[in-house]
Amino acid sequence: MISRIAILGTGLLGTSAGMALRAAGFRGAITGWNRSPEGAQTALAAGAIDSIATDPLQAARESQVVLLSVPIYATLDYMEKLSGVLGSDHLVTDVGSTKAQICVAAARLFNTPERAAFLPGHPMAGKERGGASLADANLFRGSVWLFTDDPAAQRSPHSAALVKGWREWVAAIGAKPLDLDPARHDELVAWVSHLPQFVATALSALLEDEVGDAPELKDVGGRALHEMTRLGASPYSMWRDIAYTNTEAIQAALHAIEQRLADLRENLRTPELRNQFEQANRFRRE
Amino acid sequence: MISRIAILGTGLLGTSAGMALRAAGFRGAITGWNRSPEGAQTALAAGAIDSIATDPLQAARESQVVLLSVPIYATLDYMEKLSGVLGSDHLVTDVGSTKAQICVAAARLFNTPERAAFLPGHPMAGKERGGASLADANLFRGSVWLFTDDPAAQRSPHSAALVKGWREWVAAIGAKPLDLDPARHDELVAWVSHLPQFVATALSALLEDEVGDAPELKDVGGRALHEMTRLGASPYSMWRDIAYTNTEAIQAALHAIEQRLADLRENLRTPELRNQFEQANRFRRE
Repeated sequence: MISRIAILGTGLLGTSAGMALRAAGFRGAITGWNRSPEGAQTALAAGAIDSIATDPLQAARESQVVLLSVPIYATLDYMEKLSGVLGSDHLVTDVGSTKAQICVAAARLFNTPERAAFLPGHPMAGKERGGASLADANLFRGSVWLFTDDPAAQRSPHSAALVKGWREWVAAIGAKPLDLDPARHDELVAWVSHLPQFVATALSALLEDEVGDAPELKDVGGRALHEMTRLGASPYSMWRDIAYTNTEAIQAALHAIEQRLADLRENLRTPELRNQFEQANRFRRE
Repeated sequence: MISRIAILGTGLLGTSAGMALRAAGFRGAITGWNRSPEGAQTALAAGAIDSIATDPLQAARESQVVLLSVPIYATLDYMEKLSGVLGSDHLVTDVGSTKAQICVAAARLFNTPERAAFLPGHPMAGKERGGASLADANLFRGSVWLFTDDPAAQRSPHSAALVKGWREWVAAIGAKPLDLDPARHDELVAWVSHLPQFVATALSALLEDEVGDAPELKDVGGRALHEMTRLGASPYSMWRDIAYTNTEAIQAALHAIEQRLADLRENLRTPELRNQFEQANRFRRE
């Protein structure tokens, strides 16, 4: 039943979503808008969208489903603007990496029988660099797509049907939908997504200080070093909003890894080192 | 001119070396010995060796080149045993991950005109799990093979020719030879190899405590989490010797990453976070 989609933000995720929908057989209209016109042109050329919108709010009004694929604070800004211009014949969904603030805004601005539906989403897929030119129709295949929907949402039957329809498209593009409470979501991703990023950033920044002036020495680390620092290329522009909107959970996770590293450092020659290796082995058991 | 090689320790590295030599056109004899007979049988079946030795010292005596591919303390033990039974018609080389202690032993036990040559080596290749069954003829292709040879070595012309011959085979199997001073080697690998391992171990052990009881949540982290914890599967049995023989350099690296992580934690909402991301980006510039 979904036949008109607007993708606001044709970066890596937005463009990949459009390409994935097309690859999965979506035959409706997909219009796209991007802050920089180059990103929209790239998405158009890749077949992720079939038209470039000149006004994002107008494009949203003319669509049934609006995919917000912009950073978190931009998502919150659009939620304010869209709630006033959309009605119960619309669904807005997003890809933001933290969900507590977005879900508070959704409860205030959406999800009454007269208003548009808002389905908070978070695909656990990405690359260390962004942009439409790196988009991939298979980006979401096999990865989890988290939802933190509000069980108290009071939706019109039409809105509820759009929510169901979007969930079906997420599954159709190969992602594995998983529902979580927003607070649990933000705590969990602090451990399994934000902590690995900040560890990679810290390791990369430290190694740039230590061996950055001798590029041939980076080679010495081989595949292991490459993997452990790949996320070091991730841009501040994306992670700033995550750090601001999940500060306490990330601080707790960083404090815990600092303590774990200090434990290892103090036990390099004691039997405790074996315990830590065995505990790590358990995480990677197959 | 090298036509008889003995591989003492047919684990991942020893077996891969035998397979790589064969793939690169080595037509001489390769005999292998392993503490557990299964490992030697697997290496034989894989074509890495063409006979299984019953006595490692006898096998060494009957070969021109002895590749010690066992953990560091076992390497040091073999060096003691071999120096008494080998002469200037032999070369011993190794794959140990730390080189200071091995180079001290080499200067004491080898590298005079009457004794065998010892060429300290360290291929920067491996996998998070060991064993002959994971061996791969292409394991060393494109990776650095470090040497920390002693410029003061006084070798017979025959020994010197064996050293040159082994270096040529290392290049022939696709590795990139790089020479370093032993102290500089141990300091460098503390940063680019040992630190990434201990960070991955700490992260994996911590996450096992936090989300290990909910395996479906590991899925949420996706590729990034998988990469950042892959080395968490590495066995204590291998890393114990590294921790013991490079303790101070690893402690310094761990202390530095702890401080860097604390800096990030204290600056999640300040402009300093941008500086750290940009410094990390520089390490990954292409």
